[in-house]
Amino acid sequence: MSLHDDMILMGEKAVAASRELAKLSTKKKNAILEAMADELTAQKEAIQEANAKDLAAGKEAGLSSAMLDRLELNDSRIEGMVKGLSDVAALKDPVGSEISNWNRPNGLQIKKVRVPIGVIAIIFESRPNVTADAASLCFKTSNAVILRGGKEAMHSNLAIAKALREGGLKKGMPENAIQLVETTDRDAVRELAQMTGKVDLIIPRGGEGLIKAVSEMAWVPVIKHYKGVCHTYVDATADVDMALAICENAKVQRPGVCNAMETLLVHKNIANDFLPEMIARFKKCGVELRGDETVQAFDSDVKAATEADWPEEYLDLILSIRVVDSVEAAIEHINTYGSHHSDAIVTADKDSEKAFLAQVDSSSVYVNASTRFTDGAEFGMGAEIGISTDKLHARGPMGLEELTTYKFVIEGTGQTRP
Amino acid sequence: MSLHDDMILMGEKAVAASRELAKLSTKKKNAILEAMADELTAQKEAIQEANAKDLAAGKEAGLSSAMLDRLELNDSRIEGMVKGLSDVAALKDPVGSEISNWNRPNGLQIKKVRVPIGVIAIIFESRPNVTADAASLCFKTSNAVILRGGKEAMHSNLAIAKALREGGLKKGMPENAIQLVETTDRDAVRELAQMTGKVDLIIPRGGEGLIKAVSEMAWVPVIKHYKGVCHTYVDATADVDMALAICENAKVQRPGVCNAMETLLVHKNIANDFLPEMIARFKKCGVELRGDETVQAFDSDVKAATEADWPEEYLDLILSIRVVDSVEAAIEHINTYGSHHSDAIVTADKDSEKAFLAQVDSSSVYVNASTRFTDGAEFGMGAEIGISTDKLHARGPMGLEELTTYKFVIEGTGQTRP
Repeated sequence: MSLHDDMILMGEKAVAASRELAKLSTKKKNAILEAMADELTAQKEAIQEANAKDLAAGKEAGLSSAMLDRLELNDSRIEGMVKGLSDVAALKDPVGSEISNWNRPNGLQIKKVRVPIGVIAIIFESRPNVTADAASLCFKTSNAVILRGGKEAMHSNLAIAKALREGGLKKGMPENAIQLVETTDRDAVRELAQMTGKVDLIIPRGGEGLIKAVSEMAWVPVIKHYKGVCHTYVDATADVDMALAICENAKVQRPGVCNAMETLLVHKNIANDFLPEMIARFKKCGVELRGDETVQAFDSDVKAATEADWPEEYLDLILSIRVVDSVEAAIEHINTYGSHHSDAIVTADKDSEKAFLAQVDSSSVYVNASTRFTDGAEFGMGAEIGISTDKLHARGPMGLEELTTYKFVIEGTGQTRP
Repeated sequence: MSLHDDMILMGEKAVAASRELAKLSTKKKNAILEAMADELTAQKEAIQEANAKDLAAGKEAGLSSAMLDRLELNDSRIEGMVKGLSDVAALKDPVGSEISNWNRPNGLQIKKVRVPIGVIAIIFESRPNVTADAASLCFKTSNAVILRGGKEAMHSNLAIAKALREGGLKKGMPENAIQLVETTDRDAVRELAQMTGKVDLIIPRGGEGLIKAVSEMAWVPVIKHYKGVCHTYVDATADVDMALAICENAKVQRPGVCNAMETLLVHKNIANDFLPEMIARFKKCGVELRGDETVQAFDSDVKAATEADWPEEYLDLILSIRVVDSVEAAIEHINTYGSHHSDAIVTADKDSEKAFLAQVDSSSVYVNASTRFTDGAEFGMGAEIGISTDKLHARGPMGLEELTTYKFVIEGTGQTRP
């Protein structure tokens, strides 16, 4: 069979599984998730053997130590996957819950009810634990999932998927509820992205190149988890100590993640009171600073920021700083250069706050808090499949509810349209 | 300038307008909508002159009488547009409304708030009144809109858009909140569909060919308003009189629309009691019937249905009929051949009802009512921009709420992440 035929068959199996999934009770789904967790534990050795093959091949291929680290399934990471499955079992099942209901004058009763999306394809890169995390979230929401991981983690992904399937089948999981693409042929991604009528949603998780390629080739809906160029704007009326703490946290606490601050904007009237101390604290933390001329005047270690700095996601201990004339200028900068992810204002002024929250076009807008809180768990949504930078269907942290859609259920007593 | 540069400029203008729209109050937006309505009335003669040009060109080009009818802007259609604008002004504004809010143990207050999507592109075919309808719904929800109509209605569309803009500008509408693509170059659609970062959503309204082409070329999110292959399933326990009335209504009341019934499924145990009378009533209404062998045995005028009939959207007085063994077989047929639009069961059995409503994978599922009710106004949602057959973001009738997205607004008192 051709790759095309293989993938179509995989899609058809997923659709068939999704029909069976629609019939499962929450109780049954949770028992299946627990069985998956048990089987992951039981097959730990086999998974680590498979992982050792990937690690050896990765070393030979010259993967960076950061990539090898992401690839490794040590004991604590396997325990993390097992705990993750149990945690998802414990989460509230959104499927079947009523979003709203109303009656019409003609007696029709209309309910808007959460239902599974259907078949979700997830394309991911090196971390093999995504296999378990993504599969469990899709399964909990009664979606069939087709996983396509990176080739450098193929043995690990296969071993994890095998354990999940074998565990799930023991408790009556529909066959093919969880499928893993076993070919490393890059055209498999194109096939998935163009499988109209079989794949209902494709989620690319990974670098900018992968996400752009999938978006452009896709015929089915895509939700992008794109980069985070996050800002903190320190307004003229900000409490200086609060601003210092928030900015340090947003930049330094974990610089390699999408909700970390990449650009600091400072109102000109507070620059003298705030910037010298802020710059000193960042230098102490080893942050490389790149500023406009006003910022550079405060400290000779501040390099000159160029136009290329403003849209840059450093994911590192690097920060660009700009002094602005007004909250409007800060909003304009963020909407122009940001990635619509997470942006914060530190202020004591209600008008500035209102303008910032209303006009900054980002999924999460903060007043007087660190952008580092943009996260499914921190928001209290439980596990997340990622943080959407798209505007449709799901924006910001994507939890279980965002893995569902809805249908209208209309109950009548014989109504016909006049 | 090249077409590409022209379209990019149009996109940039729309983005700039969307930023201004985010600042408008509901009161101001409603005043602008009323001013648009007034200006449409004031410019009625000019609009009808433009429309006469399109009609003359259409006749010369040999357009069908149905197409010429859709193109015509007679007095009552212009009044309809004017009333439509006032109706939209009177609808509740979803922008800024709170979907939910909660507090976190660390004191963060999180609100999920409805916000505009940003820039919406709408591609439509012959009906020029869509210019006013779509523009008003997008404007009410503070979205900038780029409209691209069919070339056969270009003069009419230009005249309507001119009136809307001139009316709106009198009351402070942001310039470029409503733009109309003035070139008939088909590549303009491709440009719009691939304008990542400028167009947030593209909605193709029209035939299957247009929708498929836009979905496949698009890099930006698409919401499809696709065909309606709607079913009514008459279960073994159905009230026969109710079933007769519902089926006649679903097929005959307005056969040319997407929520009309195209296939009737009948449980074998009720076929003898139901089908002879149903067939007689359909014949009286002039409906051409195509059935399986069991159905054909009831009446020699029933033609043989072929495999090609089951997925067909007739949009006409034609109906395919199939006798099935069970509610499961009916569900399987609908999920296989339907278009996930609107499907109904007529039954007195609670188990059949439950299985049908849960397992039929359609945007609107009915028990004991006609599928003809799938409509924004009939659902009580006010005006609709169309009926989505997609599963993401909007499913079924798409009203004002579905023209918004949300953001998380997080208010803190200096919280940082530990």
